[in-house]
Amino acid sequence: MGLTCVLEPGQDHWRREVDRHGPEALWARLLREDSPRGARARRLDLDLVERETALLGFRFVHPGSEEWLPALDDLELTGTVGGIDGGRPLGLWLSGPLTLQEIGASGIAIVGARASTPYGDTVASELAADLAEAGTTIVSGGAFGIDAAAHRGALSSDGATVAVMACGLDQLYPRGNDGLLRRIRDEGLVMSEYRPGTTPSRHRFLTRNRLIAALASATVVVEAAARSGAKNTVGWAQSLGRPVLAVPGPVTSALSVTPHRLIRDAQAALVANAQDVLSELGPLGVLQPPLVDPRARPTDSLDPDELMVREAFPARRAISVDELRLLVDLGVGECLAHLGALADRGDVEALEDGTWRLVSGSRGRTAGSSP
Amino acid sequence: MGLTCVLEPGQDHWRREVDRHGPEALWARLLREDSPRGARARRLDLDLVERETALLGFRFVHPGSEEWLPALDDLELTGTVGGIDGGRPLGLWLSGPLTLQEIGASGIAIVGARASTPYGDTVASELAADLAEAGTTIVSGGAFGIDAAAHRGALSSDGATVAVMACGLDQLYPRGNDGLLRRIRDEGLVMSEYRPGTTPSRHRFLTRNRLIAALASATVVVEAAARSGAKNTVGWAQSLGRPVLAVPGPVTSALSVTPHRLIRDAQAALVANAQDVLSELGPLGVLQPPLVDPRARPTDSLDPDELMVREAFPARRAISVDELRLLVDLGVGECLAHLGALADRGDVEALEDGTWRLVSGSRGRTAGSSP
Repeated sequence: MGLTCVLEPGQDHWRREVDRHGPEALWARLLREDSPRGARARRLDLDLVERETALLGFRFVHPGSEEWLPALDDLELTGTVGGIDGGRPLGLWLSGPLTLQEIGASGIAIVGARASTPYGDTVASELAADLAEAGTTIVSGGAFGIDAAAHRGALSSDGATVAVMACGLDQLYPRGNDGLLRRIRDEGLVMSEYRPGTTPSRHRFLTRNRLIAALASATVVVEAAARSGAKNTVGWAQSLGRPVLAVPGPVTSALSVTPHRLIRDAQAALVANAQDVLSELGPLGVLQPPLVDPRARPTDSLDPDELMVREAFPARRAISVDELRLLVDLGVGECLAHLGALADRGDVEALEDGTWRLVSGSRGRTAGSSP
Repeated sequence: MGLTCVLEPGQDHWRREVDRHGPEALWARLLREDSPRGARARRLDLDLVERETALLGFRFVHPGSEEWLPALDDLELTGTVGGIDGGRPLGLWLSGPLTLQEIGASGIAIVGARASTPYGDTVASELAADLAEAGTTIVSGGAFGIDAAAHRGALSSDGATVAVMACGLDQLYPRGNDGLLRRIRDEGLVMSEYRPGTTPSRHRFLTRNRLIAALASATVVVEAAARSGAKNTVGWAQSLGRPVLAVPGPVTSALSVTPHRLIRDAQAALVANAQDVLSELGPLGVLQPPLVDPRARPTDSLDPDELMVREAFPARRAISVDELRLLVDLGVGECLAHLGALADRGDVEALEDGTWRLVSGSRGRTAGSSP
């Protein structure tokens, strides 16, 4: 936590030092250092920062925390994008009920112009609403325009959404989105790698963009002019090897230039709606709508009869093999074979009286089962 | 001509018979045939059809005519599309100053919805205007909506345009486009494989579509609903191995469904403007902008020395054969031979004093010469 307060993210040197020596040793070295940075480290009252963090309702996570997302570690593999060094964050401040684990692989980034058109806002909002309803988490930057429309769409369908900020979480930037960002903080998640009190800057926006791309299984560009910050997020997604998708628009609009260029150059797949987005991800098994739980195992791996057996289980009570046999119209031997396979997967368990039941929590893990 | 009056195009059987026996032998056989078709052939007064054709200002061309476009012969390679047999037409009725040779490889088909939106009309019209200005010939079907917008765009920039009809040229269908079709007939070309007097039908629209695709080096879809006649033209273009291009639009419009689907399925390249269209064709050498005159004869047909002679002419004054000889480094005999060929083409003329000069207005007709 001390390191994130003293060091500026997006600088390769410090990331390498942390990797080499570990955060504690580096912090001890900084405290001894005869430099403005060392002085800042010595001046920093970590207890106070921790108390403030708790007081503000924030939590601090780092790569060693239980609440950490391995997807963020993929940032170690990226190079420099737009002059910013990649690398995973040293730590993240979080605020909101949604956890990084709950986001899992369900993140879809929706990014685009701040000065969007009503067309772009409508498309971003409806796309986000449909995608959130299908179980994905909408990730964006909390900015005006497409970002805000995407967050609003997700909230409108009671879906999960994450705003990644380029400033401390004590400031909800931009101020004009104050109400929206509060709602995201109350219902979803607001995050930043900047300590409370940090103000936004151009460098921080670009550095922040890598987190948006890393939290998402795919990045969707809705409206973006020829020169647009969205292109930087696209650069991070490409650097991470994650799919980029683009929504077309009227060719008469300057804000269609970047989406159309990405499609034309085969850098992005054309998506016209949520179904298109999900089908882009489907074959990779990243997302299978409707997802009850973002960490669903793809049902593709289940044999159809096995799936049928699993689906036949009542949610809350155990059943006998005889009862099951009638429900699925299979022989006792077949039922037992499938039950064995499902038990090996940890989906069902045999009770002492010879009945079987779903393992608690496993019900939602198969995409095919509705809540 | 008799065959086209008696046989319905788009039927594989008759095309094969013509190929096997030749049109004259088949016509002689039809005249003897004891069938309604034979009776129609015997009833047909070919002299009258010819007189009518001449009277109406139409001309009839067939694969043996001097004014025939080899690109139409590619239709022999297509299979059945949308239930219609391919094959080159037995003949074509033409009306208008533009010749098939002048179209050459410069054709670009622009097709789309009849019930188009103002967006689609604007895009089709501007695209056609820009493409026509770059020297291409805009080919379409003369229908309401995108077809009409494309023709109008081409005419607005004094460019070349062809309307391929699904009925006899004595009828300008649809009637609501009467003024437009007259203008195309007066400035470009109206064509049909149906004899004067033939009424349009669904079968004829689909059969006609193959001619639109065959006259064009590429087919551009501007607006088309999920079910649209434009998909049939796309099918012909694909069957001909010609590129299909699609203009995206708002994802909120039902008329964007087919263009977006084509792009998404990698059946069409996304094009947002004329430059995109030309760059799709450029690498293939099909079209090389900037063409000065849309009705330019392809310089491909000029022998390189002949071209050199032509290019050597000063824009505004006559020169002697001696002067020319020095400019092009050829013998007097060769110079005179090339001058003769160019004079036959109407490009140069001999003056009474024995000097030669460019024929006024011909300068711009060669693609290689800048204005």
